[in-house]
Amino acid sequence: MDRLAKCSANYVPLTPLTFIKRASMVYSNRTSIIYGEVRFTWRQTYERCCRLAYSLRSLNVVKNDVVSVLAPNVPALYEMHFAVPMAGAVLNAINTRLDAKNIATILCHSEAKVFFVDYEYVPLASEALRLLVGKHAMPLVIVIDDINKPTGVRLGNLEYQQLIHHGNPEYPGEDLEDEWDAIALNYTSGTTSEPKGVVYSHRGAFLSTMSLIQGWEMGTEAVYLWSLPMFHCNGWTFTWGVAARGGTNVCIRNTTADEMYKSISIHKVTHMCCAPVVFNILLEAKPHERCRINSKVNILTGGAPPPAALLEKMEDLGFHIMHAYGLTEATGPALVCEWQTKWNELPRDHQASLKARQGVSILTLSDVDVKNKVTMESVPHDGKTMGEIVLRGSSIMKGYFKNEKATAEAFQKGWFLTGDVGVIHPDGYLEIKDRSKDVIISGGENISSVEVESILFKHPAILEVAVVAMPHSRWGESPCAFVVMKKPGNTTETEILAYCRKNMSKFMVPKKVEFVEMLPRNGTGKILKVVLREMAKTLHISENTSTNYKTSETQINLDHTPYYEDEPHNQEKVLAMSRL
Amino acid sequence: MDRLAKCSANYVPLTPLTFIKRASMVYSNRTSIIYGEVRFTWRQTYERCCRLAYSLRSLNVVKNDVVSVLAPNVPALYEMHFAVPMAGAVLNAINTRLDAKNIATILCHSEAKVFFVDYEYVPLASEALRLLVGKHAMPLVIVIDDINKPTGVRLGNLEYQQLIHHGNPEYPGEDLEDEWDAIALNYTSGTTSEPKGVVYSHRGAFLSTMSLIQGWEMGTEAVYLWSLPMFHCNGWTFTWGVAARGGTNVCIRNTTADEMYKSISIHKVTHMCCAPVVFNILLEAKPHERCRINSKVNILTGGAPPPAALLEKMEDLGFHIMHAYGLTEATGPALVCEWQTKWNELPRDHQASLKARQGVSILTLSDVDVKNKVTMESVPHDGKTMGEIVLRGSSIMKGYFKNEKATAEAFQKGWFLTGDVGVIHPDGYLEIKDRSKDVIISGGENISSVEVESILFKHPAILEVAVVAMPHSRWGESPCAFVVMKKPGNTTETEILAYCRKNMSKFMVPKKVEFVEMLPRNGTGKILKVVLREMAKTLHISENTSTNYKTSETQINLDHTPYYEDEPHNQEKVLAMSRL
Repeated sequence: MDRLAKCSANYVPLTPLTFIKRASMVYSNRTSIIYGEVRFTWRQTYERCCRLAYSLRSLNVVKNDVVSVLAPNVPALYEMHFAVPMAGAVLNAINTRLDAKNIATILCHSEAKVFFVDYEYVPLASEALRLLVGKHAMPLVIVIDDINKPTGVRLGNLEYQQLIHHGNPEYPGEDLEDEWDAIALNYTSGTTSEPKGVVYSHRGAFLSTMSLIQGWEMGTEAVYLWSLPMFHCNGWTFTWGVAARGGTNVCIRNTTADEMYKSISIHKVTHMCCAPVVFNILLEAKPHERCRINSKVNILTGGAPPPAALLEKMEDLGFHIMHAYGLTEATGPALVCEWQTKWNELPRDHQASLKARQGVSILTLSDVDVKNKVTMESVPHDGKTMGEIVLRGSSIMKGYFKNEKATAEAFQKGWFLTGDVGVIHPDGYLEIKDRSKDVIISGGENISSVEVESILFKHPAILEVAVVAMPHSRWGESPCAFVVMKKPGNTTETEILAYCRKNMSKFMVPKKVEFVEMLPRNGTGKILKVVLREMAKTLHISENTSTNYKTSETQINLDHTPYYEDEPHNQEKVLAMSRL
Repeated sequence: MDRLAKCSANYVPLTPLTFIKRASMVYSNRTSIIYGEVRFTWRQTYERCCRLAYSLRSLNVVKNDVVSVLAPNVPALYEMHFAVPMAGAVLNAINTRLDAKNIATILCHSEAKVFFVDYEYVPLASEALRLLVGKHAMPLVIVIDDINKPTGVRLGNLEYQQLIHHGNPEYPGEDLEDEWDAIALNYTSGTTSEPKGVVYSHRGAFLSTMSLIQGWEMGTEAVYLWSLPMFHCNGWTFTWGVAARGGTNVCIRNTTADEMYKSISIHKVTHMCCAPVVFNILLEAKPHERCRINSKVNILTGGAPPPAALLEKMEDLGFHIMHAYGLTEATGPALVCEWQTKWNELPRDHQASLKARQGVSILTLSDVDVKNKVTMESVPHDGKTMGEIVLRGSSIMKGYFKNEKATAEAFQKGWFLTGDVGVIHPDGYLEIKDRSKDVIISGGENISSVEVESILFKHPAILEVAVVAMPHSRWGESPCAFVVMKKPGNTTETEILAYCRKNMSKFMVPKKVEFVEMLPRNGTGKILKVVLREMAKTLHISENTSTNYKTSETQINLDHTPYYEDEPHNQEKVLAMSRL
């Protein structure tokens, strides 16, 4: 049995690149991409990818080079998911909500060789590049003008369409020798201050994609609305997955109610992913923004469990919601809450509570368990005993780029440790009870409390600080900072918030600063965040924090959230970042 | 990027064994198996597999040992698909329609260490074992009594349930070190020569399973009727696939109309696989054998392309048919005819002809092509130019067991050569024109026997038909049709030939129609064309068909086939290059 050798006919490296090549063959004339007035077929999309890959090679991009991109969900970002690995390179899609400093950190850490910038992000990218001067070799900058309505905005000499134009449509891409080779690099916002670069292999990306289209039962001819940023775990793998199913990508630049309703109605959207906060956008849309929904729209969502009432309202509108749980390190969703027919007969609130659980593992994850963190023994399936959620399987990341310490910490005793706390119910469904303490999930975006604290700590008037989640009617959670001043009366909430807006990505800015005399601590001196979380529940968000957001027009444009007057952070973000 | 190493948390060998373990966790209380009065849950099925694997180890079964089994679609055969590889061994499910001599050949060639025999096959197995005496070490024989209605029939001292009983339900199975390790050994039915032992790897089995449940869009909670023998490519991978989806296996001993209709009706079957010949069983069922079908039943079928008329009749009964193409070497179906929504608007006969095509590659097959056998160049996508169908991907077999020559012949220039002849349509869908050995080469022209058959099949008096080559003094070969009439005396050769001349290019018209009571078939139900070819050699071409020949000399130039006096040559067909 062992003497039968692998050959190129029976052992082909697993890669999502198979999907686009196959799509160009078997779905050649089907619509691959819709964006404004732009339409492509799978044959065209494949040819554009070949051309871009060829041009990247011409620009001396070689194996393992990082190609970074700062763009919303436009066709170019979709194409790069195939073209960059076809050139042997590694795609690094950067979170567009980050500030210039964070972006510069990522460009530096990833050693980006090329940096694609959507025209709308030229100011932000320029600022990031300025911060990079002297610290790191500058990447080659290529601007992506709008393909639907070209603006003429430029940064440097090269434009995306030029690369497509000069590329070779017959270029077959570099041979993939090993499916363990890297395909993507995604930075987590992280539980610690430094962002970590999560590396995916071709194998992991292929397997995750296969599992997710299966777990969600996404059929062929799906019409997929890009309401989830592609920079979140590569769109939870659906960048590759839509090609696998020969579906249609409906790309949109902004997730406004207007744009989403129109897309759903006109293109008969069947699938979309989003954070629960997008439900609010859809539910709160004004009558003139709404359109009739004629198709059944399947939504895959994650992050904070959607409240029963919200689920019911969404279902009444014609949305069918499936709940998932995942992390960047697990290539997006690792668990999905598979619906069981027998639940159909239950009362709706009971259904909602079942649906709000995180569910069962996807097929390529070989093991999911909840373990006592000390003994590493599995907890009983009683829905009560809590433990740490641990994962194992070929859809888990290769590791953190240039960070051996963090990689070693994440992989222990044969498991990937999520840091999240959960239980397993008697029916085998897993439910999260607590996230690793320091993550605040606000509108689907992960905020590291440690990161916010470390920035606040640098404020000259602050002696001590602790940041925790406080409940927020819209975002689920918002950061709340408890501050001990060096001298009482030294500063004000307004002043500290202004400082925050200057020094951190806007979505991280606390919605509330509470001054205290001292922080509650346990016997060993550890800050009792659990006490602070209880305190935060009783606080009200100050008027001045929300009004302050209505100031900077430029910021708003950079964030592409014109509809969010007071919330510069990403409404559409998913869970997927570090914790889905 | 390359420095990030594989570890047991992020690189787990791919194996279908993941599916059963996961099913026991996440679908623990769902029904896994229905057989007569017997019911198991996934938790129970998994435990039974652990027990059996443990017992096999106790019987000194070790890695790469072959465990053979001769059984119909009973729960034991299903369980062995997991238990045998859990013990590190290789499952060899033998075709129950083979004769003793063939079975002995397989037991000998596979060096079977253990031989499980269903009670019904004890006489056949005894005969095979007798033939084995002196030729090969005798395998350990274990009888499988009926679990629903025990009979007490024995062969040797051991019975299947004993092994389950004495096994350890906590046994985790042997560690799989390498996903390239063998999981199954399936002998091809070999219509031509010696049976060949096709070896599957864990990786190949896993990937094929994933692709097929995807290609067929088999959702969770499928109720799967075992109308396809599990010994056919491990039930086209659905042995493993039903576990992957947490579905329910409805096991039946015989595919009688009665048993199938009852199962479909009572258990609300949603999915089944079968050869087109099963359609006839269902369609010709007597009223008392029929039951009302309340569920939509999806059928995946392969083998001979189902004629349009048959497809329509089946759909009228409530069956939704998807056509596939595959072979043992490709771990079952390699192509499936994915339905396209736009076809819904076409007339039914047009739909049927689209549906009868073999379709598009499954997702884990990295490449499918049709190539000129001599030049190995791809044929144009014109639906006309024929070539050999070639495959590449990780769902292709490891090779033929102990047969280096055949393995080397099958794998050439980086492709697996199917030996089948097909075309690619402009929409990327592939259609088989013939199994290469069934191509009739007449006067330098390729005639697809399948094509002639499909036209003949539409004749109202014809029940079954097979077309083979008969020797012809002038043309080399000519088509000869063997026909089973619905009612004897219903039609005549003259009438059928007149029909042919009206409905097909003249060069395709059989030179002889021979009426038979039944067609010769091998154990798997495949028509033995080799037997028909021998019969054809003894036949004489009828006067009335041959007299028609001596007509027009003028045809010659028009057709560029100077040797074709009376046969306007089909311009779609390529000139034969010996046999493509």
